[in-house]
Amino acid sequence: MDVAVIGGTGAEGYGLTLRLARAGHRVTIGSRDAERGAAKADEARDLLGSDATVEGTDNATAAAGSGVVVVTVPFGGVAPIYDVIAPSITAASIVCDCTSPLMSAVGGRASHAIRPWHGSAAEFVKTLLPKGTRLVAAFHTVGARALQALEAPVDSDAFVMGDDAEAKAVIGSLIADIPGMRWVDVGGLQMARIAETLTPLLISVNGRYKIHEAGFRVTGLDAWGSPSR
Amino acid sequence: MDVAVIGGTGAEGYGLTLRLARAGHRVTIGSRDAERGAAKADEARDLLGSDATVEGTDNATAAAGSGVVVVTVPFGGVAPIYDVIAPSITAASIVCDCTSPLMSAVGGRASHAIRPWHGSAAEFVKTLLPKGTRLVAAFHTVGARALQALEAPVDSDAFVMGDDAEAKAVIGSLIADIPGMRWVDVGGLQMARIAETLTPLLISVNGRYKIHEAGFRVTGLDAWGSPSR
Repeated sequence: MDVAVIGGTGAEGYGLTLRLARAGHRVTIGSRDAERGAAKADEARDLLGSDATVEGTDNATAAAGSGVVVVTVPFGGVAPIYDVIAPSITAASIVCDCTSPLMSAVGGRASHAIRPWHGSAAEFVKTLLPKGTRLVAAFHTVGARALQALEAPVDSDAFVMGDDAEAKAVIGSLIADIPGMRWVDVGGLQMARIAETLTPLLISVNGRYKIHEAGFRVTGLDAWGSPSR
Repeated sequence: MDVAVIGGTGAEGYGLTLRLARAGHRVTIGSRDAERGAAKADEARDLLGSDATVEGTDNATAAAGSGVVVVTVPFGGVAPIYDVIAPSITAASIVCDCTSPLMSAVGGRASHAIRPWHGSAAEFVKTLLPKGTRLVAAFHTVGARALQALEAPVDSDAFVMGDDAEAKAVIGSLIADIPGMRWVDVGGLQMARIAETLTPLLISVNGRYKIHEAGFRVTGLDAWGSPSR
């Protein structure tokens, strides 16, 4: 698949870039600065070898050229970044928002959640995109460090929310391409109100136990993925 | 330990009663109706055999006689039940609140959370108890069905919140006495704002996948428990 990772120069976005490119997808890193995007893509190719397809450019160009647009930016950057990429989003695009609304966006603690007026960051994002955009929220509980540690499988499941079952399954297939990861369909986009707050919960656990990679597994089934299978 | 399970005639409370009594603790089921409490205790003893110590009585008497008071009531019952047991709580008591604030308390869906004014059900409960009460919140992500299925270990961890580390460790030791369960210290009581909403998330997952026992494991460490060990 052609995947743009908006904010792909950040730790989380870069980790996703590495994992998705390693799985054989064509990844375009988007950055506010096209040169920084291109430099980060060079870094990824150096690491992954010549089999990997990673390019880098500015956010709007990256979003325009890719069927799947994954957005990994801090909560404070959500509004300006989506304003830039919204004109590049078409009816065929699938947007995956990975934002967790943390109090650190306003100078507070990353282990505390902030409640957006719309209910969740994902529902706020919905208002910033063209009406009818196929929007999914995911990847809130997967840390940058675990994603970048390519030698090890990721020991965490991803909660996936959205109102378009097919779009959820597309993002789910990307998640399932990352060794160790499974995806769990948690429901409609509104359920992001809950799943987004799992990031500060994991940050709190990491701090208390002096670790860096707390994550979640969902128990009750061995195989998750699409509920309709 | 002497443990009162307030609301112990309910599915969750009865499941906890069985698990804690099986682990060797002396459990007193509290009910609004002392006779119903006693009848449920008979049922538990019939199931567990003569080694188990389970009594049943009214909520206030149960709370007065036990060092640990575990409260498993629906959100709508929290205020009246705590009003009844508050006079029985002493400076030595440890109260473990298990409430998840669900929209079903006001006729909505159990897969939707309701936000109490105080931030969480646990923080609301704090205002209903004598000042300085040692209050812990836990058990939100463990289903009644899994607790009652005594032949199988419980495949889920418990998130534990509170502002008294020693009280958390006491509740944690009860959790660790249940086969399969581990406890994770998530932080102060305010973190219940997040952990309590994991119940509706699991209810949503159960509904989507047509299962009954979705739960969580926390990854990143093999052994959880007290962070200061």
